[in-house]
Amino acid sequence: MELYFMGTNAGVPSLERNVTSVALRLLDERRSFWLFDCGEGTQHQILRSPLKLSKLEYIFITHLHGDHLFGLPGLISSRAYQGGDTPLTIFGPVGLKKYITTVLEISESRINYKMDIVEHDGGTVFEDDSFRVESALLDHRIPSYGYRVMEKDQPGKLDIALLKQYGISPGPLYGKLKRGESVQAPNERTVTAAEVLGESKKGRIVTILGDTRPCPTALELATDANVLVHESTFLHELADIAHKYHHSTAKQAAETAKKARVKELFLTHFSSRYKNNEQMLQIQHEAEETFPGAKLALEHVLYPIERPLNS
Amino acid sequence: MELYFMGTNAGVPSLERNVTSVALRLLDERRSFWLFDCGEGTQHQILRSPLKLSKLEYIFITHLHGDHLFGLPGLISSRAYQGGDTPLTIFGPVGLKKYITTVLEISESRINYKMDIVEHDGGTVFEDDSFRVESALLDHRIPSYGYRVMEKDQPGKLDIALLKQYGISPGPLYGKLKRGESVQAPNERTVTAAEVLGESKKGRIVTILGDTRPCPTALELATDANVLVHESTFLHELADIAHKYHHSTAKQAAETAKKARVKELFLTHFSSRYKNNEQMLQIQHEAEETFPGAKLALEHVLYPIERPLNS
Repeated sequence: MELYFMGTNAGVPSLERNVTSVALRLLDERRSFWLFDCGEGTQHQILRSPLKLSKLEYIFITHLHGDHLFGLPGLISSRAYQGGDTPLTIFGPVGLKKYITTVLEISESRINYKMDIVEHDGGTVFEDDSFRVESALLDHRIPSYGYRVMEKDQPGKLDIALLKQYGISPGPLYGKLKRGESVQAPNERTVTAAEVLGESKKGRIVTILGDTRPCPTALELATDANVLVHESTFLHELADIAHKYHHSTAKQAAETAKKARVKELFLTHFSSRYKNNEQMLQIQHEAEETFPGAKLALEHVLYPIERPLNS
Repeated sequence: MELYFMGTNAGVPSLERNVTSVALRLLDERRSFWLFDCGEGTQHQILRSPLKLSKLEYIFITHLHGDHLFGLPGLISSRAYQGGDTPLTIFGPVGLKKYITTVLEISESRINYKMDIVEHDGGTVFEDDSFRVESALLDHRIPSYGYRVMEKDQPGKLDIALLKQYGISPGPLYGKLKRGESVQAPNERTVTAAEVLGESKKGRIVTILGDTRPCPTALELATDANVLVHESTFLHELADIAHKYHHSTAKQAAETAKKARVKELFLTHFSSRYKNNEQMLQIQHEAEETFPGAKLALEHVLYPIERPLNS
């Protein structure tokens, strides 16, 4: 599981950074990747990344501002061109469906795979055996959502060789052991789960927020997350402007991360006014004062998300 | 007057080339530039060009396929961000208005300049004192137009110092001389236009075509043009595929250029299958067999359009 940022600039692309998009790469977990937001030029960035458009499984849109959205039609079309034939589902706020269908219709784009567009207003937007994604409304000029991606805990693996020695064959007893219960072997010996069950793997939590002012929802979505991706459009010296335009400062992002007890914080969505390394380090230092280890999201870097130790 | 290509690939962006857009730079002529088509990432290319979005005056869209269109909403929005406050008019086929207004509405994009969208089905789409733009329908899967940009001839300049010596002051006599007539100086001397009028400047013709099979309209629009920009999606060995997908081969582009007696031919809109220099030279050589001097349009090169000698 890795994060890969393809756009970290706010509002417009700059020579230094593209508009918003971040991939959650789930190669080991499900041989796919998920995309959060899709600013113009995201498909261009993917060409320069280790990601393959045909492996894109889900897209989550935080809000419908152009700098998070305008890359979607081109990416959807090019995915077909590049041999993507597996289904694609796109989640996002109301309006997303009209946007995509109108644009694809007028441009007579041909999509040769199954595409679903799911509009939501928060709650559980996705769940399967291994992941659940919760969403909730943040505080922005237009409806903007955050996503909390929760990997489910994985039970440990049974020691098949040992079970064979005990004379226990695949069947209902396996299920009991997996659930942590003890069973009786044919020779009347009691076999405990602890003897034959490997260590379980604790699921990770990745929270990716749309544009927002600091708000209680951001805190809820981020609580105890392994990784939080938080916008930090401005330095705190511009807190008034941040408030006016419904954005956050680096300090505010760090405060949310600290209160939420997240393990790692990535700052992104930087105003174009911040260009050079000195300015970028100022943003990082401002966040580090509140949240030591805060990182600036850099484009085209694969950030591994460590699995937490069992507690 | 210069051409500046920002996208020369067909269908999808590649690592080598972006999707279609070409600028006609009119810095000397009107301190502005015009854009023909606007594939995704055009605004990114402009950041890397000598063009300034605030100087963009007109956009001409050839057809509504995504690779010629999907960069438009982002470019329109960013133009406001980057201080563009002069009017912008966008010409294109029916459907353009719905596309732009729907996208800007859903994304709640704020445009702080006057923007007009003019849908047309060919004919004279633009005319002022110094330029006229004619358009006509080509032969493609969906309605695709070509544009013939005609710079008007500019009369020569009057030699004001000499006229002063002759005692002729600004007024109706100036007009007569400019029209090539002779006038009487106060001292009864006859002054001919040839004596006081500098050389006139012949206008240039630039023809930029949308995607098309070879067709009579392409020939008409290109007739006697100084420059023709023609798609050449495939090599002629793939003429069947070109026909099937309503495109042209390099050979066909060259044939149109030759029949139309154009002075310069730029080939563009290359299939992604053509990647390396060897393949690209094959395209050029194929065109050169029919039209010596045919050029491959290269991105990020400023191509001056020479003024023809007076004939």
